[in-house]
Amino acid sequence: MKYSLLQKDPNSSARAGEITTDHGKIETPIFMPVGTVATVKGVHQRELREDINPDIILGNTYHLYLRPGMDILERAGGLHKFMGWDRNILTDSGGYQVYSLSGTRKIKEEGVNFKSHIDGSSHFFSPESVMEVQRTIGADIIMAFDECTPYPCDYGYAKNSMHMTHRWLDRCISHLEKVPVKYGYGQAFFPIVQGSTYKDLRKQSAEYIAEAGAVGNAIGGLSVGEPAEELYAMSEIVCDILPEDKPRYLMGVGTPINILENIALGVDMFDCVMPTRNARNGMLFTAEGTINIKNKKWEDDFSPLDDMGITWVDKEYSKAYLRHLFAANEYLGKQIATIHNLGFYLWLTRQAREHILAGDFRSWKDNMVKQMDKRL
Amino acid sequence: MKYSLLQKDPNSSARAGEITTDHGKIETPIFMPVGTVATVKGVHQRELREDINPDIILGNTYHLYLRPGMDILERAGGLHKFMGWDRNILTDSGGYQVYSLSGTRKIKEEGVNFKSHIDGSSHFFSPESVMEVQRTIGADIIMAFDECTPYPCDYGYAKNSMHMTHRWLDRCISHLEKVPVKYGYGQAFFPIVQGSTYKDLRKQSAEYIAEAGAVGNAIGGLSVGEPAEELYAMSEIVCDILPEDKPRYLMGVGTPINILENIALGVDMFDCVMPTRNARNGMLFTAEGTINIKNKKWEDDFSPLDDMGITWVDKEYSKAYLRHLFAANEYLGKQIATIHNLGFYLWLTRQAREHILAGDFRSWKDNMVKQMDKRL
Repeated sequence: MKYSLLQKDPNSSARAGEITTDHGKIETPIFMPVGTVATVKGVHQRELREDINPDIILGNTYHLYLRPGMDILERAGGLHKFMGWDRNILTDSGGYQVYSLSGTRKIKEEGVNFKSHIDGSSHFFSPESVMEVQRTIGADIIMAFDECTPYPCDYGYAKNSMHMTHRWLDRCISHLEKVPVKYGYGQAFFPIVQGSTYKDLRKQSAEYIAEAGAVGNAIGGLSVGEPAEELYAMSEIVCDILPEDKPRYLMGVGTPINILENIALGVDMFDCVMPTRNARNGMLFTAEGTINIKNKKWEDDFSPLDDMGITWVDKEYSKAYLRHLFAANEYLGKQIATIHNLGFYLWLTRQAREHILAGDFRSWKDNMVKQMDKRL
Repeated sequence: MKYSLLQKDPNSSARAGEITTDHGKIETPIFMPVGTVATVKGVHQRELREDINPDIILGNTYHLYLRPGMDILERAGGLHKFMGWDRNILTDSGGYQVYSLSGTRKIKEEGVNFKSHIDGSSHFFSPESVMEVQRTIGADIIMAFDECTPYPCDYGYAKNSMHMTHRWLDRCISHLEKVPVKYGYGQAFFPIVQGSTYKDLRKQSAEYIAEAGAVGNAIGGLSVGEPAEELYAMSEIVCDILPEDKPRYLMGVGTPINILENIALGVDMFDCVMPTRNARNGMLFTAEGTINIKNKKWEDDFSPLDDMGITWVDKEYSKAYLRHLFAANEYLGKQIATIHNLGFYLWLTRQAREHILAGDFRSWKDNMVKQMDKRL
């Protein structure tokens, strides 16, 4: 994997860059749609490729490990071939999902015992096993196994957990060296900064992670319920420490506003279920603010879904029609809203990139943040 | 509406024809995908237009009357504009849905009292009200209000019901004359033959319906549980009586084999929820037989969904991937299977048409029926 920093914004820490892997280029800043279990829910691969057009999508190690499972993915020749996606894929390490399973998982120094949410069967993830799982899935970018602490989190727990995440990182790195790639193309490994919402821990963790000398670095443990101000404060501290010549990935973030603010702080990569999950609940993100399409006010609004027309659904369907589909609980409604929202998120990060390259990112961002903070 | 009979098959009663309405041509024989409540479930209008490519789709009067309701449809300028479909639409009369509501509906000479399946609210459909509802929906082909008898049905009930359906037909026709079209284009009206599985009643009903002199005619009350032989027997009796120079529509039929056998008997138009509903349950129709994609045997079959490649999904996705989507209960699986099945049904009726025009329909049909009667 190669990263080129192309341009720095004069009035913020925003950067435009380009990552190159064996599956092609990733122009940054980038939003990565979440394809949990080998599918971006309700979206055809063709629509993803041609209409939404991201350079990279995300898969979830925890979900893929359970279904279709390692045997099938290995025999398919990896996730790209299995799902028919020939651009980049990033997999998380399962750490976040395992954290979400509170009640059915036990975290120890050795690793995590957890029960499948599908059938209750018992499984064990360790830094070593998760590296092997990610070799088998075969994503272009793979993540360290970490513990994602909850919010709020007491200082002692956060500190101990951070140190364990650091020890796990060392185990990931040394195990990866012993397990070769499986499908003939490279896999870039990103370590993850933890430290909850404590500035000193975040600083310490960022230094430890920077020291590891990976080709890219991630910021985890945020977007778990903390106020936006804390998210931004942590992101700023960490971005200032993580090396400038490597991409920075802020995991699980966030709203369109969160994304723009974090781009301004120096983040390059984002993923979040928000555009897809909220779409399935009838919430649309637009440049003018958010729409709850289930509201009765849209019932007889026969105007196009979104005059901007970022993706074809915006002009093909009316607000009244989409509102009807949600009222009738028709799945096509979720499909339309998902394409709209992902199209919007990708447009937003592409626009951010263009404005960084043009040198006017800061004023554009400030204006967009104001505009998008409305309910229509 | 205009119908041209283009070619008759020398070895069966199959015909190739062409219907022209204000929304374009319909090449017959044709299968009409069912778009119950202003959507073919899980299929974008673009996919319907460009990939599945039917000349006409169906909407359900009962469902559209309840949601989005007449007020919204009228203000939208009719169903075509509301859902963004500029080719032909046919609406049923609600008779079949009302029949399906047994327990919550009461049929009298005046009409039918029924309760909404959504909120239990009370409604009344009469031949007159249903004509007005269909004027407001604005389909290109609208249907008479009839009673669809169950199977089995005792002779006395079937006979009385048939006569009531005939009296209702007269009321439909005289009311339609008083209610003009709403959106500037024509609406063709089709009466419906009833008579359960009794040859004398079917003959009598077909003669009554033929006498009405409508531009097209339909056969109802079949595909309600009777054996295929009875379906074919009724269809044959009726097709022999209904005028040759008008299209014949067999409502609610059926399997791919049922469709080919009825084309051979002289039917021109079909609709059925089978390709879409069965798709959502993981059943795929192919030229080689049916596939239950949920079976474990497909788990590691990485070959294309269907080598024939009628629609793009057949080559884009593998059997193992589709099986995984069903196992993980991912909606994309239903979307893929629906496009596949509708693509196959449309291919089948198009092929039938080509073979009628080429003069070798009978031998092609006999071979296809044998081939398709397998489970893969």
